[in-house]
Amino acid sequence: MKTMDDRILALLTGVAGGTVSPEDAFEELKDIPFLDLEHTKIDIHRQIRKGIQEVIFGEGKTFEQICDIVGSMRAKEIDVLATRIDPDKGKRLAGAFPEGSYEEKARCFTIKKDMSVRGKGLILVISAGTSDIPVAEEAYVVSSFFGNETEKLYDVGVAGIHRLFHNLDLLKKARVVIVAAGMEGALPSIVAGIVGVPVIAVPTSIGYGASLGGLSALLAMLNSCSTVATFNIDNGFGAAYFATLINRL
Amino acid sequence: MKTMDDRILALLTGVAGGTVSPEDAFEELKDIPFLDLEHTKIDIHRQIRKGIQEVIFGEGKTFEQICDIVGSMRAKEIDVLATRIDPDKGKRLAGAFPEGSYEEKARCFTIKKDMSVRGKGLILVISAGTSDIPVAEEAYVVSSFFGNETEKLYDVGVAGIHRLFHNLDLLKKARVVIVAAGMEGALPSIVAGIVGVPVIAVPTSIGYGASLGGLSALLAMLNSCSTVATFNIDNGFGAAYFATLINRL
Amino acid sequence: MKTMDDRILALLTGVAGGTVSPEDAFEELKDIPFLDLEHTKIDIHRQIRKGIQEVIFGEGKTFEQICDIVGSMRAKEIDVLATRIDPDKGKRLAGAFPEGSYEEKARCFTIKKDMSVRGKGLILVISAGTSDIPVAEEAYVVSSFFGNETEKLYDVGVAGIHRLFHNLDLLKKARVVIVAAGMEGALPSIVAGIVGVPVIAVPTSIGYGASLGGLSALLAMLNSCSTVATFNIDNGFGAAYFATLINRL
Amino acid sequence: MKTMDDRILALLTGVAGGTVSPEDAFEELKDIPFLDLEHTKIDIHRQIRKGIQEVIFGEGKTFEQICDIVGSMRAKEIDVLATRIDPDKGKRLAGAFPEGSYEEKARCFTIKKDMSVRGKGLILVISAGTSDIPVAEEAYVVSSFFGNETEKLYDVGVAGIHRLFHNLDLLKKARVVIVAAGMEGALPSIVAGIVGVPVIAVPTSIGYGASLGGLSALLAMLNSCSTVATFNIDNGFGAAYFATLINRL
Amino acid sequence: MKTMDDRILALLTGVAGGTVSPEDAFEELKDIPFLDLEHTKIDIHRQIRKGIQEVIFGEGKTFEQICDIVGSMRAKEIDVLATRIDPDKGKRLAGAFPEGSYEEKARCFTIKKDMSVRGKGLILVISAGTSDIPVAEEAYVVSSFFGNETEKLYDVGVAGIHRLFHNLDLLKKARVVIVAAGMEGALPSIVAGIVGVPVIAVPTSIGYGASLGGLSALLAMLNSCSTVATFNIDNGFGAAYFATLINRL
Amino acid sequence: MKTMDDRILALLTGVAGGTVSPEDAFEELKDIPFLDLEHTKIDIHRQIRKGIQEVIFGEGKTFEQICDIVGSMRAKEIDVLATRIDPDKGKRLAGAFPEGSYEEKARCFTIKKDMSVRGKGLILVISAGTSDIPVAEEAYVVSSFFGNETEKLYDVGVAGIHRLFHNLDLLKKARVVIVAAGMEGALPSIVAGIVGVPVIAVPTSIGYGASLGGLSALLAMLNSCSTVATFNIDNGFGAAYFATLINRL
Amino acid sequence: MKTMDDRILALLTGVAGGTVSPEDAFEELKDIPFLDLEHTKIDIHRQIRKGIQEVIFGEGKTFEQICDIVGSMRAKEIDVLATRIDPDKGKRLAGAFPEGSYEEKARCFTIKKDMSVRGKGLILVISAGTSDIPVAEEAYVVSSFFGNETEKLYDVGVAGIHRLFHNLDLLKKARVVIVAAGMEGALPSIVAGIVGVPVIAVPTSIGYGASLGGLSALLAMLNSCSTVATFNIDNGFGAAYFATLINRL
Amino acid sequence: MKTMDDRILALLTGVAGGTVSPEDAFEELKDIPFLDLEHTKIDIHRQIRKGIQEVIFGEGKTFEQICDIVGSMRAKEIDVLATRIDPDKGKRLAGAFPEGSYEEKARCFTIKKDMSVRGKGLILVISAGTSDIPVAEEAYVVSSFFGNETEKLYDVGVAGIHRLFHNLDLLKKARVVIVAAGMEGALPSIVAGIVGVPVIAVPTSIGYGASLGGLSALLAMLNSCSTVATFNIDNGFGAAYFATLINRL
Repeated sequence: MKTMDDRILALLTGVAGGTVSPEDAFEELKDIPFLDLEHTKIDIHRQIRKGIQEVIFGEGKTFEQICDIVGSMRAKEIDVLATRIDPDKGKRLAGAFPEGSYEEKARCFTIKKDMSVRGKGLILVISAGTSDIPVAEEAYVVSSFFGNETEKLYDVGVAGIHRLFHNLDLLKKARVVIVAAGMEGALPSIVAGIVGVPVIAVPTSIGYGASLGGLSALLAMLNSCSTVATFNIDNGFGAAYFATLINRL
Repeated sequence: MKTMDDRILALLTGVAGGTVSPEDAFEELKDIPFLDLEHTKIDIHRQIRKGIQEVIFGEGKTFEQICDIVGSMRAKEIDVLATRIDPDKGKRLAGAFPEGSYEEKARCFTIKKDMSVRGKGLILVISAGTSDIPVAEEAYVVSSFFGNETEKLYDVGVAGIHRLFHNLDLLKKARVVIVAAGMEGALPSIVAGIVGVPVIAVPTSIGYGASLGGLSALLAMLNSCSTVATFNIDNGFGAAYFATLINRL
Repeated sequence: MKTMDDRILALLTGVAGGTVSPEDAFEELKDIPFLDLEHTKIDIHRQIRKGIQEVIFGEGKTFEQICDIVGSMRAKEIDVLATRIDPDKGKRLAGAFPEGSYEEKARCFTIKKDMSVRGKGLILVISAGTSDIPVAEEAYVVSSFFGNETEKLYDVGVAGIHRLFHNLDLLKKARVVIVAAGMEGALPSIVAGIVGVPVIAVPTSIGYGASLGGLSALLAMLNSCSTVATFNIDNGFGAAYFATLINRL
Repeated sequence: MKTMDDRILALLTGVAGGTVSPEDAFEELKDIPFLDLEHTKIDIHRQIRKGIQEVIFGEGKTFEQICDIVGSMRAKEIDVLATRIDPDKGKRLAGAFPEGSYEEKARCFTIKKDMSVRGKGLILVISAGTSDIPVAEEAYVVSSFFGNETEKLYDVGVAGIHRLFHNLDLLKKARVVIVAAGMEGALPSIVAGIVGVPVIAVPTSIGYGASLGGLSALLAMLNSCSTVATFNIDNGFGAAYFATLINRL
Repeated sequence: MKTMDDRILALLTGVAGGTVSPEDAFEELKDIPFLDLEHTKIDIHRQIRKGIQEVIFGEGKTFEQICDIVGSMRAKEIDVLATRIDPDKGKRLAGAFPEGSYEEKARCFTIKKDMSVRGKGLILVISAGTSDIPVAEEAYVVSSFFGNETEKLYDVGVAGIHRLFHNLDLLKKARVVIVAAGMEGALPSIVAGIVGVPVIAVPTSIGYGASLGGLSALLAMLNSCSTVATFNIDNGFGAAYFATLINRL
Repeated sequence: MKTMDDRILALLTGVAGGTVSPEDAFEELKDIPFLDLEHTKIDIHRQIRKGIQEVIFGEGKTFEQICDIVGSMRAKEIDVLATRIDPDKGKRLAGAFPEGSYEEKARCFTIKKDMSVRGKGLILVISAGTSDIPVAEEAYVVSSFFGNETEKLYDVGVAGIHRLFHNLDLLKKARVVIVAAGMEGALPSIVAGIVGVPVIAVPTSIGYGASLGGLSALLAMLNSCSTVATFNIDNGFGAAYFATLINRL
Repeated sequence: MKTMDDRILALLTGVAGGTVSPEDAFEELKDIPFLDLEHTKIDIHRQIRKGIQEVIFGEGKTFEQICDIVGSMRAKEIDVLATRIDPDKGKRLAGAFPEGSYEEKARCFTIKKDMSVRGKGLILVISAGTSDIPVAEEAYVVSSFFGNETEKLYDVGVAGIHRLFHNLDLLKKARVVIVAAGMEGALPSIVAGIVGVPVIAVPTSIGYGASLGGLSALLAMLNSCSTVATFNIDNGFGAAYFATLINRL
Repeated sequence: MKTMDDRILALLTGVAGGTVSPEDAFEELKDIPFLDLEHTKIDIHRQIRKGIQEVIFGEGKTFEQICDIVGSMRAKEIDVLATRIDPDKGKRLAGAFPEGSYEEKARCFTIKKDMSVRGKGLILVISAGTSDIPVAEEAYVVSSFFGNETEKLYDVGVAGIHRLFHNLDLLKKARVVIVAAGMEGALPSIVAGIVGVPVIAVPTSIGYGASLGGLSALLAMLNSCSTVATFNIDNGFGAAYFATLINRL
């Protein structure tokens, strides 16, 4: 993408040279620095600004709305990632778009044609317990979709911490680590105490009573003495998106 | 202590046999099942009921009040344990009662003559960080005062968990383990995942911001997937008192 | 179980004596102190480390998943305890495994062949009100399953505290007491003011409005001036598990 | 006090009869139903409306402001009750108004000439612990000031509940009971389970950590299964004021 | 009811006179001061201790359980009040016990034969809005059931406060006032600023968003500068029960 | 409306002149200053006092109740606005009152005959995201109903803030701006940093986990460094009502 | 201020006509749409954008910092309003800038030369209690400073609501009303139920215990059934700023 | 660092070849995988494991303790970074270690000899307001200390968002961006909506009332729809530490 300065200077030079009328230049300039983005669809804009394409957040959208968006994206040959798709909608989407596939555990629907690997290293997704796997799976699918080599290591929580230590080799291969944990949310602290790369903590809503729907795990992660980056409860997508930004550096 | 049933039956037999007048028996019976306790001072009562003597909670008491209580306990040759004594009061107490000693880190003043060991095994007091030591020290002093063999293991928190694993031998010797931790409060979960004896978790008010004065650590412990018993924030006394009850079984 | 040190030294002596090749010893040592656990199934590991076998937490698992786990445990002749099993799944489990039985009030499914009593004394489970009974029942079933002599005393809450005092004899026989209470959560404090053994408090989610789903009872227990050990809301399992650890000492 | 209807009708009859001019009646009527109150000082108004005189809430007022109010009340020969007066101001007030007296524990300054007893029965003020006494004392002084026979029963909390049962006679004499309790706030529930008269619960800010400045005790009281009326944390004044309203019925 | 002292003394005199054997007296005395209560059913006990009979809290009980309790109470000719009965159960109860009636708005089922008025004055039940009426109706039905003359004044909240002032006459006739209010919970403060009798405030769960399920109204009432007694959210029963205790003084 | 003083004086002059009897004047005066309002129906009263007619809050009302209210309002030829009407009730209302219309997105039912524009300028309703649109639509419909020229600008949240800046012209035309936003609730701050007119912020319950049902957005708005007026979560009605009050000045 | 479009078009015409070089136009355009603002000091910018000048928030600034800012503003002959200035700094400021004055109750320092009235009507500032006056005074001083006719009405809270009704005339003269209230925060609802103009509610931190530092009052205001606009706790400045925006419409 | 597997195999080969005795190997192996770390001082360990040296958290440490740690680190020629050092201690440290320097705004003391740049790109530290600068400065000093090229951009918050847009060039040069913001915490969302690199959000405790000591800003960041990584309130250190981990990738 040309920088904005380049574009403005070129335009002005055109006006000075008579090849562009003041009125046309006015139209062009009026929206700078945002015109670039508005000439095109939203998803393309984000691609330019953030380097990552638009994603469909499925929660609260009807099947019809999601179909429309997927259809118009496919018409432009853009790959599709839709998160928070419940099984019923997921199966109907897979029926409507046979080139795509639905991952039930991750609740994601994807149509992926561009198989280029764009992340520089391995993103490792860890879950503390079995119940945290759906959040971890969302992170796994999102990370893979964005072109990262991604591996998973599930059910290695602190109640049997030897399971984690048994996998030190895998831990040490990762360039970025995502850890999903509910209950007391202690695992990210342990992992960040071991590895030398960024650890991203995702609290999950797993638990009952004083887990407060995941707030206890969230608070534990924010207070980690091992320095981890924290995301919202169950936000596997956000963690993988952020890991992708890091992994492309 | 005779059971209450024994006492009532004996009393009634006395009345039936004419050795006790109905009026005297009435006075005696009126307060059952509480008369036993009220014949004596409060501290002796607790000794009988709970097997553990009365303790002075120093917070919110003046130096003069504490002196009075200590004095009247010593007059009865009862050992003294006063917690939450700030350094100024502590030094004045040590001056007023030279047979006693003040532990500044633990903020405890003690006069201890009865050196018998009454706990059956070792109570191990662990702190996650250096800042949690005052709470751990309170537990240590209280546990020792109540006649338990007590050891400490400090600064073995999850940011460098190898420090804990390096002390597995000590961990495995304990009959009861107390773990004081602030911040994310993760250490009790780790310890309880390793040892086979009861682990008592004490959240500390160490931290800032989202530590919410220790609430985050408290919540983490309540949600522990390793099953620990949780006490109030900074309540080193309660943890040691409860460990004593266990260790006498 | 041999200690880990014994095992390592034996292995090294084998290598020095030529009876074990360095490569084989390497494989063996690589996982120590965790190899022991990984050669075998998870449940056996916990048996070794904690002295208490693995338990199935039913919440969030499908009937099929639970069946698989129960089946593989039975194939190894391990007793089965599954908690948080709703009536529908419970009945289907009882159908699939006729040797087991489902306790609807406790929401537990058990297959218990080992009838040896391993706890040293009586565990007494108390409920404050009728509505707290499901949590108390979970504790009762879990405590019994782990080989403790267990009795129950229900509906003796503080609105009619004479009901508790009428049962002082039973109270005084217990080696460990578990008290489940919702609403204002006051009963554990009363009980711990009477008995001389460890009292474990379990807040329940019973109540409405300012009960905040059990948080009010939880806070009351954490602030008890009678020193009780507190567990998460509705965590009858945890209380009984912890009581078992104590009762085996 | 004549009812408002009586007054309006009398006024209108006066206008009809020519003894009152429309303009004068207008001035009188303009403020009805509030004129009665505004012709006079605020404190007299409350005396009429509520039957209880105005009280000075000392917190946040300067010594000079309090002096002014006390002076103007005394000029009208109104008795004075000022609450939340710290010792320094209290002593200066006692110096400025020698007819009054300052109660340090209750933090109240009073000038009381009207010694008539206006409450019909005994108000009993109970404190759970020694630290709750200042709140209980505020209730005691306020209750006495408003002309109620008032007694106190302190330090009978649930950690040694036999102390309460030893005083059943006193409990049963009361027409209204006020119970101040911090920590787990359980005592009001116990008392209300025993007596047949209204029990007013006052949580105190006594405690630390999870006591949340008295919120835990407050929540416990609101959830009491014994039906108690709850007031704000440390609001001994409000409890005694409300008990006075009851005791005058 | 004879006092406990009378009973004990009579018993002992009987033993001294040989008319009562020590063993029989022992049985009798063992449970004092609680035997009185335990010889009889729970509901009769409360009648003696509190002067108010047992009530059935319907929430969380099955139709069969409620039927059993109602049946056994009717067998003893005790009047029945069951609260928190949903319409389905209510209609079935009315079918099973044709002598009773179900109030759908109040969600109460009652069988009432004793029509004596035992409260000394009028209890007035006020609701702030139309949506608060179910809570007010519960208070109304409970108050009436306990033998109080009871009136209602609904929908007079602060958004149109003239509606309240229009009913000052009714307000001034009441001996006790109950005010149910959701949203900002301001009405009890207004009412208590006007009347000279005890005002009991019941927050309701009416509202959305920042009403936090009634917590906002609850907090407002606890902070009332007009001194009101506060009960748990939606606890119309507790308010009427407490008003009854006052109204019988 | 004549002022109250005028009315009272006129009445008194009538009495003095014999044209009004004291008894009639008494009836009239008894309710002043509220009689004016009570002579008429509630909705008309509000019209006089606030200049805005009564509105039907549909939540918690049955279809029959709403029908009754709508019917009686139409009988008086008053326009109708009913909010929080779910689609099922909305369609039935539209069937029962064919002159009205139901807006599903806004969940509002309206019968509007008075088409006069009474607001002085444009009210602009902005939504941060697509999911916030229902709340924004409620504000839009209410604002239009009350006679304000109203426009909408949706989906211009901070994740792509260029979308907002692209609409600066529209922003600058508004006399009052309403901004509905969930999640982090940042958009009102941005808007208020740009425009010079009052900005009304409405947090929405959109989000998950740490959004706490809209509390996070609410808190953000209350802390805005751009000075915005904040309303309850999802309270699109309140925002439009308040904007109407401003726009009529 | 010329619109941005005018400025861009003029610039381009200059380039087309050769009177402006492309490079100069580039510099000018680079910052559009923000250059306008950056040519000038921040305070002047806000004056243009919002129509209200920059204000100094004194909290957390040193005396020297505040002096610098005041000095540089005076050098440009801009009027000065500094809020949250404690008495010590206030007096020193008044010494350093004798043309200014310090209002201790409002904690504001002002230098005001422009005495033109720019608000169209009266802004009325109401306080519920005496303790809320500092917040009300901040609002009063700020409102006056911004050129609004402003009056005050203090100590008319709901415990004696007749005081408010006695001032209906003043209430009805206001174009905007600001109400500061702590404790239960009920007064804004009452006021908004009476007047037909916008009511702005400011919770204050006045209270104790369950007032939660003003949160209870804040929640009450957000839930007001009378529709008020709510600001942050103690934010008298924000309320007056917002009232000014309204009053200039 | 050699991998653990290499080390174990080498050791075993030594034993097999007789160059290492079983007993010596046992000592060596006993602590694996943690022996490596324990042979050396803690700070060196972290250097190996995380690639980042130990840092001194000054809060709660005495001047003497800090001096000891600094002294022993300097004895090993390790650079020193001590955070949360108040001005008094900071000046004394600078006196005791003249080679070091104290940054008062950042509250950091540093001794830095190793000037090599180890981060690959620019870390940009942004503050929303002037009051957020101390937290931003902590991040700035820490980031610089760890060898990152670091720049700052302060006071560009959302109340005047043009200030941010005026610095787009600087924004676009950064490889990692740290944004410190208090109040409504909106700035990180804006920044992350613009740049394509990881944005790290640090809430600050700046604000009052409903800012809840920074919790409101924290919640806003966790709910950001622009995907930012969130740290604890005021945790400038953690943000810079995490940014360093990213910038070394």
